[in-house]
Amino acid sequence: MNEGRRPATSTDVARRAGVSQSAVSRAFTPGASIAEETRRKVEEAARALGYRPNAIARSLTTRRSRIIGMAAAYLQNQFYPEVLEAMSRGLRARGYQLLLLMPEHGRHADPLLEEVMAWQVDGLILASTTLSSALAEQCRQAGIPVLLFNRTTSTAHVSSVTGENHRGGQRIADLLVAGGHRRFGFVAGIENSSTSQERERGFTEGLARHGFDLPARAVGSYSFEAASAAARNLLARADRPDAIFCANDHMAIAVAEVARHEFGLRIPEDLALVGFDDTAPAKWRSYALTSFSQPLQPMVDAAVALVCEMIENPAAPTRQAVVPGELVMRASTRLPESGWLDRDGQRIWRGHESG
Amino acid sequence: MNEGRRPATSTDVARRAGVSQSAVSRAFTPGASIAEETRRKVEEAARALGYRPNAIARSLTTRRSRIIGMAAAYLQNQFYPEVLEAMSRGLRARGYQLLLLMPEHGRHADPLLEEVMAWQVDGLILASTTLSSALAEQCRQAGIPVLLFNRTTSTAHVSSVTGENHRGGQRIADLLVAGGHRRFGFVAGIENSSTSQERERGFTEGLARHGFDLPARAVGSYSFEAASAAARNLLARADRPDAIFCANDHMAIAVAEVARHEFGLRIPEDLALVGFDDTAPAKWRSYALTSFSQPLQPMVDAAVALVCEMIENPAAPTRQAVVPGELVMRASTRLPESGWLDRDGQRIWRGHESG
Repeated sequence: MNEGRRPATSTDVARRAGVSQSAVSRAFTPGASIAEETRRKVEEAARALGYRPNAIARSLTTRRSRIIGMAAAYLQNQFYPEVLEAMSRGLRARGYQLLLLMPEHGRHADPLLEEVMAWQVDGLILASTTLSSALAEQCRQAGIPVLLFNRTTSTAHVSSVTGENHRGGQRIADLLVAGGHRRFGFVAGIENSSTSQERERGFTEGLARHGFDLPARAVGSYSFEAASAAARNLLARADRPDAIFCANDHMAIAVAEVARHEFGLRIPEDLALVGFDDTAPAKWRSYALTSFSQPLQPMVDAAVALVCEMIENPAAPTRQAVVPGELVMRASTRLPESGWLDRDGQRIWRGHESG
Repeated sequence: MNEGRRPATSTDVARRAGVSQSAVSRAFTPGASIAEETRRKVEEAARALGYRPNAIARSLTTRRSRIIGMAAAYLQNQFYPEVLEAMSRGLRARGYQLLLLMPEHGRHADPLLEEVMAWQVDGLILASTTLSSALAEQCRQAGIPVLLFNRTTSTAHVSSVTGENHRGGQRIADLLVAGGHRRFGFVAGIENSSTSQERERGFTEGLARHGFDLPARAVGSYSFEAASAAARNLLARADRPDAIFCANDHMAIAVAEVARHEFGLRIPEDLALVGFDDTAPAKWRSYALTSFSQPLQPMVDAAVALVCEMIENPAAPTRQAVVPGELVMRASTRLPESGWLDRDGQRIWRGHESG
């Protein structure tokens, strides 16, 4: 703790390094321009003196905490850890740190509000959580930009970054119809999530264009356990689906397990399966899951750029960024006679768009 | 942004809520005692006035940021997202927030040092990263407690929380020998990680006690791709192992994929597989992976308690907490004739300990 010793100041560091005080300040300001040699001198002097640049004191001057809060509720689904990792690296490259806000399980309303206010984050990214109108309003009043990631909301004017939820659902309908399937099932995520709603709407509209009725439907709530129960429900029906689209890969893996190990079904001969996200486990050969991709790095890059823009220019209009994905075909669906192409070791469905 | 309007102060909130200013302060101090009714009044008044309690200003008074930095390098391995989620919730219950520090890929030395110093974290938890002696020394000088999670180090006196790495490796040797296996393989994690080293030492010592030589060995570096290559290496040998222990579940799944889909091997008939951690994918029936457990919640509880203790009492001696695990048997290993018991839907190996 260096008790009794006066803490080193930036003046001490500047004197020892033989540079100006402003150089010391720049050396510790993320993203500031400084010659590599000067930075090295400052860092050496700071280390020798035990100097701690004080981001907190600085934040009182600049009124910026340089902390972005990010809420994510489902780290079980491999999509979100990958997002978190890329987001943390992306924000860091812009001089921000990521404060992880995990909503409490089952807590009723706006569990994040206190934290967001108390820690004075410069911005808030909500991934896999819904934005209440109360939280949106509080953030607006406090001047804290909010970005929805992999979600949209109709209750407030909020910027968002999503994949192609609606088109993805449509393309999946096109592929399954082209593969000769006739009885369709859908496993929904959390019912009020825009993501699940849009994927379902795209899927049912796509099926309708090919002359098919609404698919059989069960709710998996984005959880492995609920999706397993949804699979039992769908697969026990007299008119058992021969193709199921699950609103994400995580649920599709649960459905694959139930289909194989409880119903003795072969995939794709007895049951075709499609997920959404194209996460790492979709590529594991035991599942070889056909999935509509949400390209992680472009989505994260868009989110980082957008949140930084909102911080720098609070008057900027809200924006809804949609990052295009592709339907990556693997062994969990039958191969149609045509309509696909092989590229970079992946097979992409490019059949005629129904929409 | 409330331009032109004076920001509300805690005095304004106290007046409107009809409570004392100290009640307002308590309402926004994590962990402080306050009647539910008072808290409700304060929160209502704060909302109405757009009041933002200022954790940053408070941290200058208390010299506490109430932020804990946590570094985690491998979010691909499902163990770490689960840790992150539980750690964030556990710290929050103690009034701390978790700042996620992702080391940059391939950056040479102490990528975290700047962040730790600049953000004045109250404590630092290093999960799945090694602690350089430079970082350890800097943190010691700055009075920032450091806790290693799922790692230990011999280069500094640092507190740590780990599972039973050495005993786990031994128990796995006992189980595989009891199952009648005779040719053993080991897939190591990152070579200089204490966790991989201790698991390997336990395994080889356990095998030696039963009269077996060192296992065939390949390095998987905790990555899916490197573990797949390690599997190809081990399985192509003339004296192909009939049982492989992988230093974590994530690598064991990669080995299972290669064994089945590239070598046409049946698990466990041709090859037994054991992992470590007992993560969610180990339970997926396509893998049904036998694994030595690292009980997540007890490990996180121990880490949260330890880091809080270190913050409150900087003079406390360092401690190495070891959280006991169990060898959970599933279908990826042959069932020995005896030595196991069924409990809570799980089969636990309890055969005579070799150690």
